Amino acid sequence: MTNPTAAMLVVGDEILSGRTRDSNMHFLAGELTKHGVDLAEVRIVADRADAIVAAVRDLHDTYDHVFTSGGIGPTHDDITADCIAQALGRSIDVRDDARALLQAHYDGQGKELNAARLRMARIPEGATLIDNPVSVAPGFTLENVHVMAGVPSVFQAMVASVLPRITGGAPLLSQSLRIERGEGDIAGPLSDLAAQYPDLQMGSYPYVQNGAFGVNVVIRGTDAGRINTALTTLSDLFAGPA
Amino acid sequence: MTNPTAAMLVVGDEILSGRTRDSNMHFLAGELTKHGVDLAEVRIVADRADAIVAAVRDLHDTYDHVFTSGGIGPTHDDITADCIAQALGRSIDVRDDARALLQAHYDGQGKELNAARLRMARIPEGATLIDNPVSVAPGFTLENVHVMAGVPSVFQAMVASVLPRITGGAPLLSQSLRIERGEGDIAGPLSDLAAQYPDLQMGSYPYVQNGAFGVNVVIRGTDAGRINTALTTLSDLFAGPA
Repeated sequence: MTNPTAAMLVVGDEILSGRTRDSNMHFLAGELTKHGVDLAEVRIVADRADAIVAAVRDLHDTYDHVFTSGGIGPTHDDITADCIAQALGRSIDVRDDARALLQAHYDGQGKELNAARLRMARIPEGATLIDNPVSVAPGFTLENVHVMAGVPSVFQAMVASVLPRITGGAPLLSQSLRIERGEGDIAGPLSDLAAQYPDLQMGSYPYVQNGAFGVNVVIRGTDAGRINTALTTLSDLFAGPA
Repeated sequence: MTNPTAAMLVVGDEILSGRTRDSNMHFLAGELTKHGVDLAEVRIVADRADAIVAAVRDLHDTYDHVFTSGGIGPTHDDITADCIAQALGRSIDVRDDARALLQAHYDGQGKELNAARLRMARIPEGATLIDNPVSVAPGFTLENVHVMAGVPSVFQAMVASVLPRITGGAPLLSQSLRIERGEGDIAGPLSDLAAQYPDLQMGSYPYVQNGAFGVNVVIRGTDAGRINTALTTLSDLFAGPA
């Protein structure tokens, strides 16, 4: 597969404590799949500088793109921008164009651009701003790292701003078949089928429903015709009662 | 904080493709928080041996405990057990006690313990089995790595089997306050408050609802009295209309 690869880094104490469920990951995964970018890894780390810096360095060196969510707001626990600068060896300071965006926004609301809000104009040297049509404070792209907000509506708007700049490959297509048999009954034939279609990925996802075992088989690839043919073969194999 | 630390490794193509949402992470995070174990990192990797082996080694060396979910079923894409053995330098083969569990289960169902199902009895040398009251095929603990199934009902049952074996610390408690103001308005006072309570973590999670901005502030720690005092102070600071 020659599609570009990507990783996501979620900065989120609140997810690690079990208080909230992440939804940005699921959104980004779907958008990247449509755009022909292979999301190969996701990491969720706490709001701690050492953890964020280490993860950014590692993912930056390994994948074509890194998408981060969270930690770019005005409060004391918003340290992502500074961590990105540190990880990539850049300086960071309030930038005039980002400050002007915030000044105009808060002037219009009759609110003060106080010291806390001004933190959101801190942008690492050499970065490109990412537009935020929801709440103005921008994200940024530095090298291959795209830094976005954690609030889902803002994250989604920023992804929409960033994706058109990224060259994708062939969209990954998928079809699935629900088979009401135990996974152990289909494993052998499925393995044989997978060997016949080395260009497709075949995943089997078991479920338990009302005490009965079944499997969803998902076939993924970039060639719709091949996926259809493989799915038809699979369906014929397991047609009729178990 | 002296609580033991943990990481979770989710093996899951289907999450990275955006097809399904992970629910095991959210469940484990909540259980570990109650048990006094700090979940410090989550990684989600594809069903690829090199990715799984590298992540297991890294997390095994860094945290007190590692919990994995997914990839221990009977199909060709279930490679987690072999990857754990490789990562920790152990041999792996069908083990008699695991085979006996499966044999009795499938005999009782009138099903064959075929080659695919027998793969689920492959257990690395030196591991301890984890009970699976839902579908019998066991998980296992090897050193500090707890290997569990991805099907949520099975994962949850295995977590219930494993947690009593793990010595936890003080449960992490939390309280939250919803403040209907912009995050930039509360950031300064919140930072001052956080400095007064270095034993507590204060996180601020902004939201947008019907076009209005607000913040949920979450205060976490192990001392319920201190959390209450800090929350009351915070509430007094922002009582009344903005």
